[in-house]
Amino acid sequence: MPRYRISIEYDGTPFVGWQFQPKGRTVQGEIQAALQRFSRETVKVHGAGRTDAGVHARGQVAHFDLVKAWDTFRLREAFNYHLRPHGIAILECTDAPPEFEARFSATGRAYLYRILARRAPPALDASRVWWLPMKLEPAAMHEAAQVLVGHHDFTTFRSAACQSASPVKTLDRLTVVASGEEIHIHAEARSFLHNQVRSIVGSLKEVGTGRWSAADLRSALDACNRARCGAVSPPQGLYLMRVEYGVSHPPALRASAQS
Amino acid sequence: MPRYRISIEYDGTPFVGWQFQPKGRTVQGEIQAALQRFSRETVKVHGAGRTDAGVHARGQVAHFDLVKAWDTFRLREAFNYHLRPHGIAILECTDAPPEFEARFSATGRAYLYRILARRAPPALDASRVWWLPMKLEPAAMHEAAQVLVGHHDFTTFRSAACQSASPVKTLDRLTVVASGEEIHIHAEARSFLHNQVRSIVGSLKEVGTGRWSAADLRSALDACNRARCGAVSPPQGLYLMRVEYGVSHPPALRASAQS
Repeated sequence: MPRYRISIEYDGTPFVGWQFQPKGRTVQGEIQAALQRFSRETVKVHGAGRTDAGVHARGQVAHFDLVKAWDTFRLREAFNYHLRPHGIAILECTDAPPEFEARFSATGRAYLYRILARRAPPALDASRVWWLPMKLEPAAMHEAAQVLVGHHDFTTFRSAACQSASPVKTLDRLTVVASGEEIHIHAEARSFLHNQVRSIVGSLKEVGTGRWSAADLRSALDACNRARCGAVSPPQGLYLMRVEYGVSHPPALRASAQS
Repeated sequence: MPRYRISIEYDGTPFVGWQFQPKGRTVQGEIQAALQRFSRETVKVHGAGRTDAGVHARGQVAHFDLVKAWDTFRLREAFNYHLRPHGIAILECTDAPPEFEARFSATGRAYLYRILARRAPPALDASRVWWLPMKLEPAAMHEAAQVLVGHHDFTTFRSAACQSASPVKTLDRLTVVASGEEIHIHAEARSFLHNQVRSIVGSLKEVGTGRWSAADLRSALDACNRARCGAVSPPQGLYLMRVEYGVSHPPALRASAQS
């Protein structure tokens, strides 16, 4: 059966998350339903990462198999026709080799978190940013963030519901930059623990307001204690920007890949 | 009576436009209603420009008078409390001198128009951009746009409903820049004719697709004929970014100020 790879943009607002659930609208569910409508095939669409309710994507990746061989341009057109107006768009559709798996073949994931730091509430970006009506220091946040870059036990920054076998991850990039009234936090790693980015952002906010120093952030990391995490930031500021597929990795490494 | 000046951000999507109308939700109407709720004063709020239905603002400006003298910080807080969740936010509130008029004192207006030029429809920005599923040449659009900069009769790029006494305006800036998958068109002038930016953008699209040359755009301008305008672009890509109040102008010039 031919395998296909798609990259997906979605507005997380109306969904209870990526992963299919019997109740509630999910991104995976809508994509599978659209696929069923035009292909008449009932298949599972496997995503690279399970984004939570309200989390957006500019470049989620998924794969699926169909009995029929499709021209990928026509496949994308059919998807987008049948997905409207659902807040989901298929950006790219390509043929994929049979061994390609959106989740386990991924070699990198990149997230963006947007904070709007101003007194006035957002009118245009209400479901797109975390609104913090206070002054934040992005330079201090960036400097402290470097404490978290590298290979660490991220137990402090991991949801209690996280199903990953190990709390140890390698964070490749964590940058904090001011962009007008917004603060953008870019996080990149091979894979992330559940709620890891939102937990880190919640803690970086404490640094931004001056409540925490960089040393406090390091102490929270070293404690390997969930109770030491700052309040988890809300989902609407988070965007899965892209998933990378670089050099292939041996099967032994696959077991550690977790989104 | 003390006069106040406010700058306003709004999502134009749910409104029939800025200007109050007996039927339908308007930005002016919502702001006046909020003001009435917390101040118990029924006053008119005068905007710098009347944006159409669906047009957004990042920096609309308005003024109004109240009998009561307010601390401007508290005034802004009261506004934003009473405006939520209406898609309108008061960004700034300051005391204004009695001669200040949001519309007639303005010395410059800046608009941004966002085009999303890609095959896949927008999932995150559906009501924020003009989606054009085609290839556009921003460099050609920018070059042609320079034809329109300066002092011209803009009859070709003016709505039939435009109430301005004269079709002659001075366009100070018209730049077209690529920004990822988007094309951003920045337009600045002391004042604009009704639908002028959207008419210009509709015509620049013809240049972007290669249907029109820069000479065709010049010919359309020179014709001073509305029928020569490209199809007017839709409202959801347009943003009133800011209104400027620089050196004051003599009353003789005021009659020509038109938003």
